[in-house]
Amino acid sequence: MKFGGTSMAGIERIREVASRVAGEVARGNEVAVVVSAMAGETDRLVGFAHAASPLADRAEYDVVVASGEQITAGLLAIALQAAGVPARSWLGWQLAVATTGAHSTARIEAVDTSAVLASMAAGSVAVVPGFQGVGPDGRVTTLGRGGSDTSAVALAAALHADRCDIYTDVDGVYTTDPRIVPRARKLKRITYEEMLELASVGAKVLQTRSVELAMKEKVRVQVLSSFIPAGNDPEPGTMVVDEDEHVEQELIAGVAYNRNEAKITVAGVPDKPGVVAAIFGALADAQVNVDMIVQNIAYVAGTTDVTFTVPRTELALSEDVLAKAKGNIGYASVTSDAAVAKISVVGVGMRSHAGVAVTMFRALGDRGINIQAITTSEIKVSVLIAEEYTELAVRVLHTAYGLDAT
Amino acid sequence: MKFGGTSMAGIERIREVASRVAGEVARGNEVAVVVSAMAGETDRLVGFAHAASPLADRAEYDVVVASGEQITAGLLAIALQAAGVPARSWLGWQLAVATTGAHSTARIEAVDTSAVLASMAAGSVAVVPGFQGVGPDGRVTTLGRGGSDTSAVALAAALHADRCDIYTDVDGVYTTDPRIVPRARKLKRITYEEMLELASVGAKVLQTRSVELAMKEKVRVQVLSSFIPAGNDPEPGTMVVDEDEHVEQELIAGVAYNRNEAKITVAGVPDKPGVVAAIFGALADAQVNVDMIVQNIAYVAGTTDVTFTVPRTELALSEDVLAKAKGNIGYASVTSDAAVAKISVVGVGMRSHAGVAVTMFRALGDRGINIQAITTSEIKVSVLIAEEYTELAVRVLHTAYGLDAT
Repeated sequence: MKFGGTSMAGIERIREVASRVAGEVARGNEVAVVVSAMAGETDRLVGFAHAASPLADRAEYDVVVASGEQITAGLLAIALQAAGVPARSWLGWQLAVATTGAHSTARIEAVDTSAVLASMAAGSVAVVPGFQGVGPDGRVTTLGRGGSDTSAVALAAALHADRCDIYTDVDGVYTTDPRIVPRARKLKRITYEEMLELASVGAKVLQTRSVELAMKEKVRVQVLSSFIPAGNDPEPGTMVVDEDEHVEQELIAGVAYNRNEAKITVAGVPDKPGVVAAIFGALADAQVNVDMIVQNIAYVAGTTDVTFTVPRTELALSEDVLAKAKGNIGYASVTSDAAVAKISVVGVGMRSHAGVAVTMFRALGDRGINIQAITTSEIKVSVLIAEEYTELAVRVLHTAYGLDAT
Repeated sequence: MKFGGTSMAGIERIREVASRVAGEVARGNEVAVVVSAMAGETDRLVGFAHAASPLADRAEYDVVVASGEQITAGLLAIALQAAGVPARSWLGWQLAVATTGAHSTARIEAVDTSAVLASMAAGSVAVVPGFQGVGPDGRVTTLGRGGSDTSAVALAAALHADRCDIYTDVDGVYTTDPRIVPRARKLKRITYEEMLELASVGAKVLQTRSVELAMKEKVRVQVLSSFIPAGNDPEPGTMVVDEDEHVEQELIAGVAYNRNEAKITVAGVPDKPGVVAAIFGALADAQVNVDMIVQNIAYVAGTTDVTFTVPRTELALSEDVLAKAKGNIGYASVTSDAAVAKISVVGVGMRSHAGVAVTMFRALGDRGINIQAITTSEIKVSVLIAEEYTELAVRVLHTAYGLDAT
């Protein structure tokens, strides 16, 4: 069972989580619980770290931000004990959750479950702080924002769990964000691949890596709400499953949007081999994940412009990296725009149907929404637009693909 | 260098701490820094833990509250790096600071300095969260409130430091609390023993255990303010020293008060051997530190009343322990009073002078202040009074012993 920040926001909510965990224990299940920090806490800690230095050492950044989940893990263990359920917390370095050394974007490499399995077999619920691990040098690492989902799936895989229930503030995966499109529909099932594309383009229900990991490790993940009382249905939310299990395949599963990217344009780059590699090599060395990339012919002969997106949180770092690499790259200028959004349509049915992208471009064009960049995959089409059109674009596409609830 | 909660309260203050540390480094010193949590943070965390359960599992309580210092340690390391000073944080389990397994009141048993010494020799400031350690079972422990002073002295001893500068919100040790007695005087020097008695009765400048440890390990401790700009005097605060070093011995060094105790009376206890041991044995098993003890003859023949004080924070626990031990002890009733204060006069000069206690009782009696209990040591006389008389009693005694500044 994994509980997100809104589910852990305050002692009253933590008690409700304890009571839900107690219910699973009463049904005869051995339970491990992965917890996020209280809603708002990680933002508070990130704010401290950035205030101390905008380019904070990421190893120390991890020391600061990992404490949010440490707090809730201890509190849930206390609340479980108060509810008569034996429990103890297992911090990242205690389990241990071994990760790579890439601070603040670490990846889990192994979860040692020997001690925790013995403890669970003896009747104790294991409470594990999400988001955190320990690097090869014995220092605290974190997995990046939303990493607790990945912690949960990794632990579920390591424990060979029957199910990984991810409790959040929504009751499942919808065809799009119901706050933007009131007629969005809840999906009963979705494939790992669709979920992966939805997560990676900002559906925000599950973190990308957690879905990748679930797919790789064949972990049955359920998304469900911690705000709806527990009933008798063991699958009340949305099950994320293999494509084989997924019967009712529609053309498009959902429309997603992502406002967490920023656009950077490196202008006046010499149009010769190795220069683009110099740009993205420098960013990769700084652990910046570049997403959409467009290369244009520039006005000045012999040079080109390169446009790409990076996570907004890494915009300052990226600009810093580019400034330092200016001599090596030899560009004329760097401009950036954080007011962009990426809109995507996703569906495994797309593989066998042409014209999905055309429908998208036409629907957006009809509303006068300019497309700044395009990327596609086998089951996804994404476009970058001005942020102010986000909601309009999502609503238009949801209708265009016939997803509106009747 | 050790910085308390008010010195770490917010990023601006943490930057000032970084600049003070940078000054010591610039003077050619190798520096280790021990930090407290931001002012108010530990209270917030303790509040969470108690809200989750008033009798929270202390091992989990430690997991929760230790995070406050983890946050400031990371932030100070970031701020030092931003100021151009190489630095890294060393958490309790990383150093490691090995403690006993008595969660929330653990004692430091050993500090492994091998890795940190190598790091310091290589020019990196070591930033160590106070208050926390790791128990024999590898779980997080804490030292009890104010434990960061002890962390600092233990680390100073383990590092064979020349000096342990404890920065706080006062500029030294005073003859009493200047907020109560404006004419209180700052002491240039004080002995470990006097400091110990002042700390243990609530002078609040240094934690008791830190002074015990400094005395045992002969660590030269300086108390000074982080709110006064650094000058050229290496000893601008109050030095806590050996009695040999202490020249100007006055009769009384200071007057202290403590409002953190509560009085418990166990009435109708069978007046026979072993019964008192049953009371204090049960409390000791629960790790409650009992302070003043008075045994009275009760009105009912063959029974007695036992009155004692415990830390106010442990009043609920103590009452719980006594309720559970009722069958074993066989008392008639338990009553408690949290509205009490302990007032003490302290001074090594007292050893060779009679009449110190008489002066105290007379001064208090003249003001109609009733004495509920008395304890004495070689260099201290303490009385328990109703809390409402605290300030009056302190002022009266400060004047009676001639401590008022002219």
